[in-house]
Parts: sequence; structure tokens; C-alpha cells
Amino acid sequence: MANINKKMVALGTVRSVIREIFEYGNNRAKEIGRENIFDFSLGNPSVPAPEIVDGTIKSLMENMGPVALHGYTSAQGDEKVRIAISEDIKKRFGADVTKDDIYMTCGAAASLTVTLNAIVCEGDEVVAIAPFFPEYRVFAENAGATLAVVPADTEGFRIDFDALEKTLSEKTKAVIINTPNNPTGVVLTPDCIEKLCALLKAKSKEYGHIIYLIADEPYRELVYDDSTEVPYLINCYDASVVCYSFSKSLSLPGERIGYIAIGRNMPDNREIYAAICGAGRALGFVCAPSMMQRVVAECLGKTADIGVYRENRDLLYNSLTEYGFSCVHPDGAFYLFMRSPEEDASAFCERAKKYELLLVPSDSFGCSGYVRISYCVSTDMIKRALPAFKKLAEEYNL
Amino acid sequence: MANINKKMVALGTVRSVIREIFEYGNNRAKEIGRENIFDFSLGNPSVPAPEIVDGTIKSLMENMGPVALHGYTSAQGDEKVRIAISEDIKKRFGADVTKDDIYMTCGAAASLTVTLNAIVCEGDEVVAIAPFFPEYRVFAENAGATLAVVPADTEGFRIDFDALEKTLSEKTKAVIINTPNNPTGVVLTPDCIEKLCALLKAKSKEYGHIIYLIADEPYRELVYDDSTEVPYLINCYDASVVCYSFSKSLSLPGERIGYIAIGRNMPDNREIYAAICGAGRALGFVCAPSMMQRVVAECLGKTADIGVYRENRDLLYNSLTEYGFSCVHPDGAFYLFMRSPEEDASAFCERAKKYELLLVPSDSFGCSGYVRISYCVSTDMIKRALPAFKKLAEEYNL
Repeated sequence: MANINKKMVALGTVRSVIREIFEYGNNRAKEIGRENIFDFSLGNPSVPAPEIVDGTIKSLMENMGPVALHGYTSAQGDEKVRIAISEDIKKRFGADVTKDDIYMTCGAAASLTVTLNAIVCEGDEVVAIAPFFPEYRVFAENAGATLAVVPADTEGFRIDFDALEKTLSEKTKAVIINTPNNPTGVVLTPDCIEKLCALLKAKSKEYGHIIYLIADEPYRELVYDDSTEVPYLINCYDASVVCYSFSKSLSLPGERIGYIAIGRNMPDNREIYAAICGAGRALGFVCAPSMMQRVVAECLGKTADIGVYRENRDLLYNSLTEYGFSCVHPDGAFYLFMRSPEEDASAFCERAKKYELLLVPSDSFGCSGYVRISYCVSTDMIKRALPAFKKLAEEYNL
Repeated sequence: MANINKKMVALGTVRSVIREIFEYGNNRAKEIGRENIFDFSLGNPSVPAPEIVDGTIKSLMENMGPVALHGYTSAQGDEKVRIAISEDIKKRFGADVTKDDIYMTCGAAASLTVTLNAIVCEGDEVVAIAPFFPEYRVFAENAGATLAVVPADTEGFRIDFDALEKTLSEKTKAVIINTPNNPTGVVLTPDCIEKLCALLKAKSKEYGHIIYLIADEPYRELVYDDSTEVPYLINCYDASVVCYSFSKSLSLPGERIGYIAIGRNMPDNREIYAAICGAGRALGFVCAPSMMQRVVAECLGKTADIGVYRENRDLLYNSLTEYGFSCVHPDGAFYLFMRSPEEDASAFCERAKKYELLLVPSDSFGCSGYVRISYCVSTDMIKRALPAFKKLAEEYNL
């Protein structure tokens, strides 16, 4: 074996469970036809970007010289773009965020790695709340931290506060939350957020150092009921770092565009921001893609047609519960978290494959006994898949 | 001070010398008018992207659905894009590189950080040859290595092989070369490359482990004489990693698009590639910007109008040497490396400021007594700046 970084070899060799299922689906589609495969494995937006995206690209190419349009922006992002985003945040959430608190990134993953590399010191722990996006572990460990996991609250898939309190320690540097959540679709209620912030404030005081709250927010805009409120963390907790991405809201996941936002009241605001700039530099980001920075600044408040996801959610949730499956009701994102009718979710997923249903077992999200069903697919595919789900339910006598 | 990563705070706080000069220029331009300032500080392409770039963007938007165009590609890059690039490499350089040896990145900086994070183990040293791009130190140290610097060969600004041999040790994991070079514009000759590769082969054998050769190649296409050959490293040394970027060749520095290429004959080829994929994942890159991947695949072999840079080079080199300055003849890139007429290059740059000439002292490139003059500026500005250079020469009685 080559004398190189073995951790990186392992990270590049081990295929994720989701990717395995996706590849299986592609091979199976070649055998029996794409229309006969019901692939619910990937969290890849199925709704096109709104027309304003391509329209803005065209008008930028017409109205801005290529040297400026495709040229470097400052490392933290184009100033006008940061002004537009900070004003949008102020307008929508009333949060005290200025252009100098925004750092443009290559999407949510970059927002997270930059943030973690900025704040983590040797020996630190970063806390994730199960079920959670598996890459949190990769990002936290690569930044030099240990990931500490709070077991899932299997009642409402919000936060088990007793378990969280047991997980917090002097070593805790940050807690990551993801609301709306991947893989459950659950949105943390204002009450829950309030309780979380109060606990983190008390613990920060007790330990004599700040515990940062990292909000991983690629799904913020994907919420389906007017009654569902998604609190803006910077308004609730001064030491919040919002890691935003336009991947899902504008259906631009491949373009890698997002930002990090902190509030004016972040303790040591300038130092934290400098560390974010430093981490972006050290990781090799230079600047976020220049044209896409301008595009998203013109598309603030716009989204892809998320009505399709709402329709999919209602159709799937209502049908599957009718068939006897037990599902967490998703307030947002595009995932349905369904209880596996047998303890071993992987075994259940294997049985589902017999009906050409491709589901993801929950184990890699740090929580066993469930499956994730991504409904960022065509409504038509869901309709065609329902008889298969029905037969699967019957096999388990639900 | 906040209990966060102090190295990152420092990296984000200390402004680079080049940035300082650039900001000085902006302020001075407000005082006396942009046309009276001669800013030679930044390595930012001044020539627009060729028309095929915006044309390809338009045709991609017309002919490819937005879900595919703006959607995730695989982590290593879109397969068709990797096929196109590997075939272009095969055609132009005859190198044995396949689609499975190409990893698309967010530009040269990302190519370097991903490569370094893939190969560096604890205790490793990475060797840079002065003068060198200062971010190499940041990238190498953040990957966990120590940067060892080979002093400049002030004869021809190629490689001082005695000094290199003294710098190599059991700890050496990789040597970075940059040809055409920033800040000198020098291209390493085939003889020099041959000697380098022979030395690295011998030393790899002596130490019992491979020394990787990292070729930082953003300037490969910017070469001004037909007689100047830029050897393709993969043809010369099996353990070469080519870190390429389209930033300068297509004048797209803000779009962050490039790639890493290794050869089929790279020892442990699959393991190295896996480590590159793993490092990209751990640093948070996910995939290179999806639309720009397709754009560069359509623009292979095309460049911005580098004739402008050639004209600038000739005008500046001929004029400055005529005035009595001593300059390294640049074969490529868009930098002229000029000897400071006094020992302290910073003091010389201060004197140059009196004539509104903004030059970069060479110290931050690991070599004292020179200045870098970036000629990626308008030819007209150079013409207007020549009388100032002449007066400066006269002040030193050259």
C-alpha cells in the first residue's frame, strides 16, 4: 500500500450505502427498464431551477463584461452579493447581519467544513443529533474534532434533551442541528429551539467557554405548511453559525453555491469571521463561483416549484400510513422517515427490492430500524410505486 | 480571544502583501484618478474569456435540461467531461491518462489542497523551490506537512540542484514545481525536468518510498515562443500529479474550475485516486461546479487572447532592460521578475510608489532582492507607465 494518507484512501474507497443503492438501481434499470424501478434513494432535487436562474445568467452575460463576471471576487464574496444577502436576511428574519458577516461558499458542505475548521481546536468534540447526515462525521473528524452523537428522540424526532445534556461536556465546541431535517423531514419547533438555546447558554456559562450552534440549513425553504415556523437561529442564540446553501431551494446542487452567516452579536464577531476566512483559504476555496454568486443574489426569495414536493409528500405519507406503515410526518425537506416493519432495516430494504422499491436503511444516519424515502422524484413514479408499497405492506401483514 | 482555531484566525487576519498593495492602489486611485496609477500588483487575467465560453453556456442552457445541467455530477466529475479531458491530454501530450485518472476540482488551489491532503502523513515534508507562490506554505501546513524551501537559483531561476539535494530527506513526501512560474515567468527546460526526475527517482529508491512530483500548472497555456517546450510531467515521472486550472488559460479565475490528473503508471494508481476522492470529500468539495465542467470540456485547446500578454511582455521587458533594469526573461505566465536596484526590495517598491508604480517585493515568494511586475494589464497602461519606470531608473543612476 502506498505511503499516503490512509484515512483519505478509506474515505475515497468506501462507497456510501446511498451510492450503492443508487448504482444498483442504475444496473437494474438496464435489465428491466427505468420505468419499472422505483428509486427513492437520492436527495437530488427533481424539480428544475426556476426560469429566473437561466434568465439571470443570460442577462449577466449580456450586461456585465466577462472579465468582471468570470473574474475573482474577494475571498469572502462579491460585496454587492453580500449586501443583497444580508439585507434579505434582515428583511425576512429581522436578524442583525451585515455584509461583513456573510462569507460566500461552495455550498452547504463547504459551509460546514469551513466553519468546523475555523472553530475546532485539538481535543474538541462536535455534537450531532441522530438521525443526522452521515458526512457530519467526516467533516468534524477532518477538522480535528471527535463527533459525539445524541441518540434519536424516537417519539417526535426532535431532541432528547436528557440525552443531549449527557452528551455535552467541557470538550463540546459546537452542536450541529439540521432543520428541516435529513433524513426525517422534521422541523424543530420554536419551543424546542428555545429549550436548546437555553441549555447551550447555561452550559457555555458552566464550562466557561462558548458552545457554538451550527445550523445546517439547505432545506430552510422547503417547508410545506403555513403553520410551520422555522426559527432563525441568529435571533435565538448569539453564537449561531448559519450554514446555508441554494442547492435545494433553487435546485442548483451541482453549482456549489451557498454562504455562512453570523450575527453582529456573535461574541468575538470579527475573530470568528477572520477564522472563517482563514479556513476557507487553508482548504483551497479562494472564492465561491463568481457568476453563481451574482445569480443567487438576483434570485433571493425565489424557489424552484416546491409545490411538487408538497404533493409528493401528501401522496406518499397518506398512502403509506393507509397501507399500515408507520411514518414520521415530514414538515419539510423531501424525505419521509418510515419505521421498518422488521427490526433490521437493511433486511427490510432487501425485501423491498423484490418489488423494485429502492429505500435507504436508517443505520448510516445514526439510528436503526427506519428507512429514508426521498420524494424528490416525479409524482408519476410515486403513483406507479404505490401498488408495490401496498404489496410490501401485505407481505408484513400490516 | 475566542477559544477557536488560532491558526485560522491568523490566516484570515493577516492581509497578504499583494492585497495590501492592491488596496493602497484603490485608495490612491480615488485621490488622483485611476488613469494616473500604474498597478502591476495582481495576477488577475485582464484579457476576457474567449467568446466560446459564454456561447457554450448559452447553448448548454438551451440544449440540456436544468435538472441535469445544474444538478450534482459524480464527486470525481461528470464522466463525459473526464473523457474529453483525458482524450485531450492523450492527444496533446501522448500521456497515458484515462477518465478514471481525472478528478475535477474547484481550480488550482483546490487541486493542490486535495492532492496534499490525499498524500501527506504526519511528519512529512513538502518541498517548494524558491521563488514560489506563498499559498503553498498555507496549503502544505494545513495538510499536516512542513514546507521545506529550496533557495532560489539566482542564475537562471530554474533549480539549484545542489540545494535541492540537500533539502530532500527521508521526510520528503512531495516536491511542488510551477512552470511557467509565478513570480518569475520562467519555464523549466526539458533538460532541467529530466535532471529533476532522475534525482527524484534515485532519492525515492534510496529512501524506500515514493517522492511525488506535484505540477502546479495554471500557466501551462501561457507561453509566448514556439521554441519554448513545457514538458508534460506524467510523461517524465510516473509519480506525477498534475494540478491544472482553467483560470488563466480561459480567463475564468472566479469560476473555480480545474482538475487533477495522474497517469496510468502512477504507482498504486487506484489507491492514490481513491485518496484524492477521499480528500475532496473531507474538505467539503462535493463536486466541481457542474455547468462550468461542461463549459471547459467544450473549450479544450481554446484560450483567451494571450497575444496581448506576449505584446505586454515584449514591451515591458525591452523597455525596462533598455532603462538599465535587470530582468529575468519570462518565457510564460504574465509576470516579469526584476532585480531591485537596491538590496531591500520593499524600500525600492516604496520609491516606485512615488511614481505611482505599484510593484510587489519578492520577499513573500521566498527570495529577496527582486520585484514582481504583473503584466496582465492593459498595454495602454504599460505605455503610460514607461516614463515613470524611466525616471525611477534615473533616480538609481542605472
